Amino acid sequence: MQRTSWEKWNGHNGSIFWLTGLSGSGKTTLACGAESELLRRGVRCVIIDGDRLRQGLNRDLGFTEEARLENMRRAMEIADMFLEKGFVVLVPMISPYESYRKQIKQRFGPEDFAEVYVKCSLEECEQRDPKGLYRKARAGEIKDFTGIDSPYETPIQPNMIIDTEKYGEADAINALVAYIESRLNNI
Amino acid sequence: MQRTSWEKWNGHNGSIFWLTGLSGSGKTTLACGAESELLRRGVRCVIIDGDRLRQGLNRDLGFTEEARLENMRRAMEIADMFLEKGFVVLVPMISPYESYRKQIKQRFGPEDFAEVYVKCSLEECEQRDPKGLYRKARAGEIKDFTGIDSPYETPIQPNMIIDTEKYGEADAINALVAYIESRLNNI
Repeated sequence: MQRTSWEKWNGHNGSIFWLTGLSGSGKTTLACGAESELLRRGVRCVIIDGDRLRQGLNRDLGFTEEARLENMRRAMEIADMFLEKGFVVLVPMISPYESYRKQIKQRFGPEDFAEVYVKCSLEECEQRDPKGLYRKARAGEIKDFTGIDSPYETPIQPNMIIDTEKYGEADAINALVAYIESRLNNI
Repeated sequence: MQRTSWEKWNGHNGSIFWLTGLSGSGKTTLACGAESELLRRGVRCVIIDGDRLRQGLNRDLGFTEEARLENMRRAMEIADMFLEKGFVVLVPMISPYESYRKQIKQRFGPEDFAEVYVKCSLEECEQRDPKGLYRKARAGEIKDFTGIDSPYETPIQPNMIIDTEKYGEADAINALVAYIESRLNNI
């Protein structure tokens, strides 16, 4: 069945929102908050979570540059499968490389894809350290950790920036939901 | 959102139907035919097609035993993602190894998973040869081709057998749809 038929069935178009940012910046929190709200409003929504993928589909991958690209590539392919079914797809995933994010953006095109930069300084992320990963990275127990000994390239032209240092959780989620809704059509 | 909530929303439970069989046995034809009919009846349905995966998500994989297992593993993980959204998931994929099919079966359990053996003799598949692959394999142009120089282990205890040598396309599709519907509850 064509994607347009799914969109008709779902009552809205499919669309991908790729949330990039440092570990601890709030990507997953934002995605989960937005998902709940969108579901409440009857929007069919799925989260392709970077961390969760690593426990399942991507459990064979490490954190070298090559593995990170493969990690993103697979997330992109899965996002595409759900897009075909007319889903709103939220992808919270560090995605540190600008060039690869650009490739993903180009593959889907501006109608179907938005890059959301979840902005938060390294200092703040390190202070939050919700999973204790920065501490481990500083202690050398984790290698190739983004922001510490692996680069994060700040998005040059994201479709939206959500600054989670400035805004509280509820406000940040509301902003994301409003942006997503602005890109949805009732079909 | 819990899977049960999705199932309520969709109006039926999610379930996986794994179609195993030789290349040319009719797996994809059956899956596509069943999908059309199920969609017509309002069942949310997705096909995770082995051949199509190899053009996207699994484009990095070859046909060694290891690569085939990885191919199946990824299909299983994606099937799980759609199952979580209450989809009927059809997976047409050669899946030649009994031991690995058993693992997949056990992971999902008998409520959520059914193994459908699409039965067709090698001779008949080779005669059909819809993609000219057997000819190439016999000529040595393709290596590790299932049934020729790579094994296919016949399912020992499949949930259903569809014999595509005995039954015509329409009958085979009807049988599959009837079986799927027998495993669906209106929720």
